[in-house]
Amino acid sequence: MEFTRRDLIRVSAATAVLGTLSRVAEALDDPLPSWNNGAAKQAILTFVKDTTDKSSSKFVEPKDRIATFDQDGTLWTEHPLYTQAMFALDRLVKMAPQHPAWKETEPFKSVLSGDREAMAKFTEKDWVEIVGVTHSGMGTEEFQSLVLAWIGVAKAPRFVRPYTDLVYQPMLEVMKYLRQKEYRTYIVTGGGQEFVRVYSEQVYGVPPEQVVGSSIATTYVNTNGKPVLMREPKPFFIDDGPGKAIGINMFIGKRPYAAFGNSGGDTQMLQWTQAGDGARLMMLVHHDDGTREYAYGPAGGLPDTKVGTFSEALMAEANKSSWTVISMKNDWKRIFPFDK
Amino acid sequence: MEFTRRDLIRVSAATAVLGTLSRVAEALDDPLPSWNNGAAKQAILTFVKDTTDKSSSKFVEPKDRIATFDQDGTLWTEHPLYTQAMFALDRLVKMAPQHPAWKETEPFKSVLSGDREAMAKFTEKDWVEIVGVTHSGMGTEEFQSLVLAWIGVAKAPRFVRPYTDLVYQPMLEVMKYLRQKEYRTYIVTGGGQEFVRVYSEQVYGVPPEQVVGSSIATTYVNTNGKPVLMREPKPFFIDDGPGKAIGINMFIGKRPYAAFGNSGGDTQMLQWTQAGDGARLMMLVHHDDGTREYAYGPAGGLPDTKVGTFSEALMAEANKSSWTVISMKNDWKRIFPFDK
Repeated sequence: MEFTRRDLIRVSAATAVLGTLSRVAEALDDPLPSWNNGAAKQAILTFVKDTTDKSSSKFVEPKDRIATFDQDGTLWTEHPLYTQAMFALDRLVKMAPQHPAWKETEPFKSVLSGDREAMAKFTEKDWVEIVGVTHSGMGTEEFQSLVLAWIGVAKAPRFVRPYTDLVYQPMLEVMKYLRQKEYRTYIVTGGGQEFVRVYSEQVYGVPPEQVVGSSIATTYVNTNGKPVLMREPKPFFIDDGPGKAIGINMFIGKRPYAAFGNSGGDTQMLQWTQAGDGARLMMLVHHDDGTREYAYGPAGGLPDTKVGTFSEALMAEANKSSWTVISMKNDWKRIFPFDK
Repeated sequence: MEFTRRDLIRVSAATAVLGTLSRVAEALDDPLPSWNNGAAKQAILTFVKDTTDKSSSKFVEPKDRIATFDQDGTLWTEHPLYTQAMFALDRLVKMAPQHPAWKETEPFKSVLSGDREAMAKFTEKDWVEIVGVTHSGMGTEEFQSLVLAWIGVAKAPRFVRPYTDLVYQPMLEVMKYLRQKEYRTYIVTGGGQEFVRVYSEQVYGVPPEQVVGSSIATTYVNTNGKPVLMREPKPFFIDDGPGKAIGINMFIGKRPYAAFGNSGGDTQMLQWTQAGDGARLMMLVHHDDGTREYAYGPAGGLPDTKVGTFSEALMAEANKSSWTVISMKNDWKRIFPFDK
């Protein structure tokens, strides 16, 4: 049989179709479609391949596949203020009529009068007081109901959307991809453990038992056979900085193979992760996209911030330790699920 | 065709074979072969059926299937002394040459001179001191190595076997059965979390992240890029009594559907479990078998004990609250895996 021009056309057409199909298949195969090709995306793909391929010398047994994620600024927006701080302020305003003295007492007075300038200068102690009165005095289940009701209606400034809309699509893809590869994804947050557990499953696919966070003391009170865990105005565990390594050991008892953060409070989590043997993945989200989200941090010209501080020292440690810094501007095609 | 005597013999033989086969099948089907038929075994079977049968009004989603087990006295032998206390005493003796002053200082002096009478009278404070010096001053990984080395060679008195041999075969069957039915089994122990995590997977099939226990404070120390979590001689969390309900909420964030204990320290765990809706299973192991194990508790004539106290008040609460009391003597065919 002779090869004719007609055959050539047929083959070309078939090749073109195959080419298109292969590009579609590639897109479907891409577990990280919201990531631009680059060092950050490649670091994730290489890490997953190295630790899940049985023939790799860096293979990790599924039972040991642990990945930890900071929440604020790593999985969702933390500016202008942490979501939980917004909850505390809203709740303070709602509680105010029952506490007339607050009108004359700082730090409550500034909150109730809406004095943003004063609020921007709140110290750690001011916040502890605000969290104390708004997060305690009720049972754990009542607290969860309060959070659930609030988060269903509250709107984030600037985007005027529910806070739970402001999650980072590229990070959701990383979490999902890791879970497909039999990693268990944990949230390790400086925020309140009981706060985050209310929505973690729905928003991130992370069940409550895989949320490690800060907590306040609870007391077991059993009246009439109806036991309640009463939340006390007293910090119990601060899951931040060195507390993140301590919390990981206490709650999980296994060293993570991958850890994702975005600020100084995540330093020890990344150090602790890296100190293990084999392949380890340490990543820091850098907020350098003021157009699509917020810009703050150590890169040239970005403003400093008290919320989610990424200092020059942290950037230096990242470079020295070969941690991968994710540029929101350059590495992420989309920021939020609602982005086109 | 006529039915002959010969046919009758054939049918009888077939029936006999079928009968034998059916008994074999029944035994194979029985998920709890070391349990005698009785109220305790039936309570477990009914609970599992009710909560895992989709057509049941008490059906529980797999993600919420949580069962919690006390360890000492519930999963393994706690007499004459908790295994971890034995570890502490052995380690104290081993450390003594480096601490000559201990020979003259209580409570160490009594331990080093082997004064059993004095040791039997040790107060809570004495034990805190002994645990303090033997369980701290090293990193978490070094501690785990010490426990692993000890538990591989130490022998339990009376049985002269490794402590890990003294697990209760009927309870291993309950744990396995629950896991087959998509329950996650957690150990919730007054003992040291980091101690139990060393062997929990191998002995009980419970991974480290499903061990909730007491802990001492740790400090993050990073020298030369080799971070260590140093164990401090300071209690951090006591997972006993009300602490068990608090620990369950803190570590799991979900209410158990089933809880197993054996002493006063498990009371609040059972109360907290029962206070949930739907079907809940609360069980207490009663040590009433001095022949095969030990006998102590509230039943007629059994001696009282400081180790794993099952008071008359607890028995009264169990009866009032319809908790199922497991009689080791009557409900268990075998106690240990090595029993015939």
